[in-house]
Amino acid sequence: MLSAMGEFDLIARYFTRPTRRAALGVGDDCALLLPAPGTQLAISSDMLVQGRHFFADVDPFTLGHKALAVNLSDLAACGAQPLAFTLALALPQADEAWLAPFSRGLLALADAHGCELVGGDTTQGPLNICITVFGEVPVVQGKSQALLRSGARAGDDIYVSGTLGDARLALEALRGTLTLPAAALAQARRRLEQPTPRVALGQALRGVASAAIDVSDGLLGDLRHILRASAVGATLNTSVAITLIAACARPDWATAIISSEKQLDYVLAGGDDYELAFTAPASARQAVQAAARQADTPLTRIGHIDAEAGLRLMDAAGKAVTRSFSSFDHFA
Amino acid sequence: MLSAMGEFDLIARYFTRPTRRAALGVGDDCALLLPAPGTQLAISSDMLVQGRHFFADVDPFTLGHKALAVNLSDLAACGAQPLAFTLALALPQADEAWLAPFSRGLLALADAHGCELVGGDTTQGPLNICITVFGEVPVVQGKSQALLRSGARAGDDIYVSGTLGDARLALEALRGTLTLPAAALAQARRRLEQPTPRVALGQALRGVASAAIDVSDGLLGDLRHILRASAVGATLNTSVAITLIAACARPDWATAIISSEKQLDYVLAGGDDYELAFTAPASARQAVQAAARQADTPLTRIGHIDAEAGLRLMDAAGKAVTRSFSSFDHFA
Repeated sequence: MLSAMGEFDLIARYFTRPTRRAALGVGDDCALLLPAPGTQLAISSDMLVQGRHFFADVDPFTLGHKALAVNLSDLAACGAQPLAFTLALALPQADEAWLAPFSRGLLALADAHGCELVGGDTTQGPLNICITVFGEVPVVQGKSQALLRSGARAGDDIYVSGTLGDARLALEALRGTLTLPAAALAQARRRLEQPTPRVALGQALRGVASAAIDVSDGLLGDLRHILRASAVGATLNTSVAITLIAACARPDWATAIISSEKQLDYVLAGGDDYELAFTAPASARQAVQAAARQADTPLTRIGHIDAEAGLRLMDAAGKAVTRSFSSFDHFA
Repeated sequence: MLSAMGEFDLIARYFTRPTRRAALGVGDDCALLLPAPGTQLAISSDMLVQGRHFFADVDPFTLGHKALAVNLSDLAACGAQPLAFTLALALPQADEAWLAPFSRGLLALADAHGCELVGGDTTQGPLNICITVFGEVPVVQGKSQALLRSGARAGDDIYVSGTLGDARLALEALRGTLTLPAAALAQARRRLEQPTPRVALGQALRGVASAAIDVSDGLLGDLRHILRASAVGATLNTSVAITLIAACARPDWATAIISSEKQLDYVLAGGDDYELAFTAPASARQAVQAAARQADTPLTRIGHIDAEAGLRLMDAAGKAVTRSFSSFDHFA
């Protein structure tokens, strides 16, 4: 009786669970949350729109995962511990065959991070998923421990976590602009559809990184936000960067069909990566490696911060790479 | 150069303002918020979809107002003091002629309530406005002062604030199912397009009301949420209720063309009212009136809570009114 399932039934069936940290969860006018003493609340909202952020035929389980993952990624970039989230959902119809796997994918990731669904809204309309996520950041002696974009200083190293470019590679394959071997497509597609928010790494980097951002629109564009907020410039090593695209590491997979220029394009401006890009003083290299081990997350040092404004690309020989890379912009 | 205005320009131009209460506002991965000591955070999300919650040609200034008003109304129903909000916005295109008045209407109401825009998201897609709002509720000696749905007890009075039914009257006029005199339409339309969230009343009712909810889906439907959460029933006086529709108070306005049955329909099940419905012990009548004066908000006592489950309607003569009223459901 899908047509008879109203808003309140739908919420009760798929999105209501016992409250844990929240004083009051789904089912009243507001949720009530009591942040731990000595913490500050980190808040971020992300909206996913069909046709823009995902294909109409995407597996709803992975869509549920990704809708929360992109929000947890923002908390990670602040060094926040996930606490709770709200979900506002516009659906063309209350389709149980869609809602059941969507809610499973969403809540599986939520449970993995102890992040509680505390409220939200459902309505009829073109498919739109809007999540607002809340996390805690310690405040020590009046000073917030949040990782901001504004703390990068000349001489700092620049790092990225994990791999970059594979999500874009999968997107292009799904769009039909290139063809990948099945195993390479499967691997790249997992990166596109089920990104891993670097929540543990973000927290491990508190007090270590000088600035951080999550890579959602492409590394160059997102790094520029750090450079602008910190009033600095940067130099990146393209011969290191190009190694970051995982699917091209095996010559029998993608390198045969994708030029190295295209690989670099995807690494530097692919988008949808949900890795962390961050800076740290050279004196903190051991602490950075310790954070990587603690969070069980690989890191790559790809450049350094300059006093001079602008973003420069250098190859292994120290020669300037002057081609242009365009960052992803949801309104460009 | 509309087409050249990207997401970041759009946010900077229309939605970035200096932070006040927030430790960090728009422009990093997360906003940072430090709730006052001894308070709990109240959180609510509402999503507005074109064609479902507003007409495509609605004045964007009033739409900005309403998008925040419906969220502030949820805070009001909890007795919370507004603190901050996030805005996620899907737009078909970055149209300055729309964005400028929309942001003015939104931020004018935000300023009136000291409620700060701290973050959000913009993306391209069918018009969708998702706001998540944060408020503070005092916690006194470990006990939250939030107004919940679950505190109504047999013998309690039932009140509603302001007027009910006018928003629905305007909606029907705009849909063309009835015709109103111009002055009546203008008045009713203000109620539909620029509802007044009862924020001051909600706070004044802390420690006075036993249960509260905001009337968004229609009085009967919303009151049933209180009855269910409190495991009680209720009796409403229809001869009092019918006086709540403002546009019909002048005989030369709407009564000539709208039957009294229809008027009662709109009052009890019209929806989109954003008034508060609440219960309070009969012993608290003076305190309720004091709260009404303090909040400068008219109240009407329309019934009482019964121990017996179910919602009963009685006319002035004490005779049962047995017709059925259907509540608004975004998926029905």
